[in-house]
Amino acid sequence: MAETKPPAPDLGAALAAASCPVPASSTRETILMAHGGGGRLTQRLIESLFLKNFDNPALRELHDGAILEAGGVRLAFSTDSFVIHPLFFPGGDIGSLAVHGTVNDLAMCGAQPLGLSAGLILEEGLPVADLERIVASMQRAAAGAGASIVTGDTKVVDRGKGDGVFVNVTGVGIVPEGVVISPRRAAPGDVVLVSGEIAVHGIAIMSLREGLRFETTLESDTATLNGLVADLLAAAGAAVHVLRDPTRGGVASTLNEIAGQAAVGIRLEEAKIPVAEEVRGACEILGLDPLYVANEGKLLAIVAPEAADRALAALRAHPLGAKAAAIGTVVAEGPGRVTLKSRIGGTRIVDLLTGEQLPRIC
Amino acid sequence: MAETKPPAPDLGAALAAASCPVPASSTRETILMAHGGGGRLTQRLIESLFLKNFDNPALRELHDGAILEAGGVRLAFSTDSFVIHPLFFPGGDIGSLAVHGTVNDLAMCGAQPLGLSAGLILEEGLPVADLERIVASMQRAAAGAGASIVTGDTKVVDRGKGDGVFVNVTGVGIVPEGVVISPRRAAPGDVVLVSGEIAVHGIAIMSLREGLRFETTLESDTATLNGLVADLLAAAGAAVHVLRDPTRGGVASTLNEIAGQAAVGIRLEEAKIPVAEEVRGACEILGLDPLYVANEGKLLAIVAPEAADRALAALRAHPLGAKAAAIGTVVAEGPGRVTLKSRIGGTRIVDLLTGEQLPRIC
Repeated sequence: MAETKPPAPDLGAALAAASCPVPASSTRETILMAHGGGGRLTQRLIESLFLKNFDNPALRELHDGAILEAGGVRLAFSTDSFVIHPLFFPGGDIGSLAVHGTVNDLAMCGAQPLGLSAGLILEEGLPVADLERIVASMQRAAAGAGASIVTGDTKVVDRGKGDGVFVNVTGVGIVPEGVVISPRRAAPGDVVLVSGEIAVHGIAIMSLREGLRFETTLESDTATLNGLVADLLAAAGAAVHVLRDPTRGGVASTLNEIAGQAAVGIRLEEAKIPVAEEVRGACEILGLDPLYVANEGKLLAIVAPEAADRALAALRAHPLGAKAAAIGTVVAEGPGRVTLKSRIGGTRIVDLLTGEQLPRIC
Repeated sequence: MAETKPPAPDLGAALAAASCPVPASSTRETILMAHGGGGRLTQRLIESLFLKNFDNPALRELHDGAILEAGGVRLAFSTDSFVIHPLFFPGGDIGSLAVHGTVNDLAMCGAQPLGLSAGLILEEGLPVADLERIVASMQRAAAGAGASIVTGDTKVVDRGKGDGVFVNVTGVGIVPEGVVISPRRAAPGDVVLVSGEIAVHGIAIMSLREGLRFETTLESDTATLNGLVADLLAAAGAAVHVLRDPTRGGVASTLNEIAGQAAVGIRLEEAKIPVAEEVRGACEILGLDPLYVANEGKLLAIVAPEAADRALAALRAHPLGAKAAAIGTVVAEGPGRVTLKSRIGGTRIVDLLTGEQLPRIC
């Protein structure tokens, strides 16, 4: 990728604020857009509110989904709400994005989907034709992943109390025997793979919002990854230690979470991280670092070193993984820390962002 | 209950409009508050949009939850989004309501909860203290039902694009062997039981909004019903044919749905339907029919006649079912139709409502 851009203007202040933490329980504190950004404030909310209150072993895993046992079967269970703006964008819409997102969260547990639910919150005044388009898109996305939407719920809120449509998709899936995927399994020596060019979804949405024009229209990479995961697991099996889709907060935030949970360091090599020219250019115009930009059709796999080559080959053999690459390694040093060796040889820390990066990107 | 009130003023026009149906795909049609009311427009949306697009056997059951099979175990899977206004009310808040609602939807499949998910959509500017109160309340509600919130997701929308907090809770539960609960199992001769006084939740919320004052504060009946269901199933087993919690749209809408799905008639006796004096009075002031008002801690059970007495006794032996009553019977005549024999001996049809009844009641 190009030289690292400085953070967007508002981030400086936000980062400064972060060094003087306000307890989440401050009576005056209010929710900021950045609490939904996938960075440090999101993490603080999770730790100080959700983990504190809901504490239980399944939640404590902090994986993309929880693993539950029923009758000797391991179930993956994952939920995701979508508030993306605008509702329709090149490459997809809120409906397909929601189905892809939850199918992918199940896939990141190694699971294939058993059933999906759809919970819609509609704003009064939404054209029914828009809703029809979204619902049809959800169905196409589900069918494409071999999944069904088996239960649902619809609520309506007054005009001005919502924003067109918000979509929750929750999924249940079955984890095959022998598959144990967990962020905690990242171990020194493991290789970090990415399934393709990063930052496409976020840049497609931001370009649309900012009215940027490219020679071709940049389309979101939104796609279901359960087929890709099935091929990867068939090739590398139990050597696949961690799977995550780097959505909100991008590759940087996701790897930071894994490094923290597994208490390992992660070293990335900038020159090996695939970024499309068009995305690189848009990032420069928008002042964004592609490492922090959302993906919706990419996965990160952390695999045992002896299986790295065949895992990479399996990814590359799948249409959604054609540009897969090995981008880094897990190390024992600097637990919780992600570092990047730049093209010119320097090394910098790739930290969690504190401020608002790309609001309502999913 | 008191003599039946005429429908609220706007319902006349809405009912007239319903006799001249606009196809859901009309390009000019927009979402109305009534699409979320649980009445005819909600049903039309489900049929013309969701069933048409998502069609699959599990969804076609149109139960409170879907039944999925995994490794020989039957799973219940149900989702519900909550947009209640105001967020805090006597007897509960959006957090406890959301957990109770989804635990109850699982219970209406005969299932005990295995795991719950929480999907929150926060509006920028929400006091973190309010969120803490809601999250703590969700945890208390889950613990009270013997359930855990095992996975979650949080999104933030800009100020003016949400309304404080919207909560989705989705649940997975296990259906015990031998239990087969389905709206389609309602059969002529079956007895219709209700677990207690109706219309309490809706009237508590409406009283709060309208600033009505009673001698005592009317509290929502929000509660988890899985314990009550366990006792009922222990007493009456496979003789329990249908379970439903009459939330949005109340007892009238729920029984209409069951009558339609099972192609049976349902005859109610007004004199047998338990309504608290305070609720009856508020209904008269507000011009509401308690049969259409939401409940959040009551269930309807349709049971085989030979098991009706022991089913009723089991309900009454539980604190949440102390005022349970047999309120009607299932008949072969008039399939899809619910009728009410009034106190003075007349009979009227209890139809689905078309207009907006009680917006954002759950």
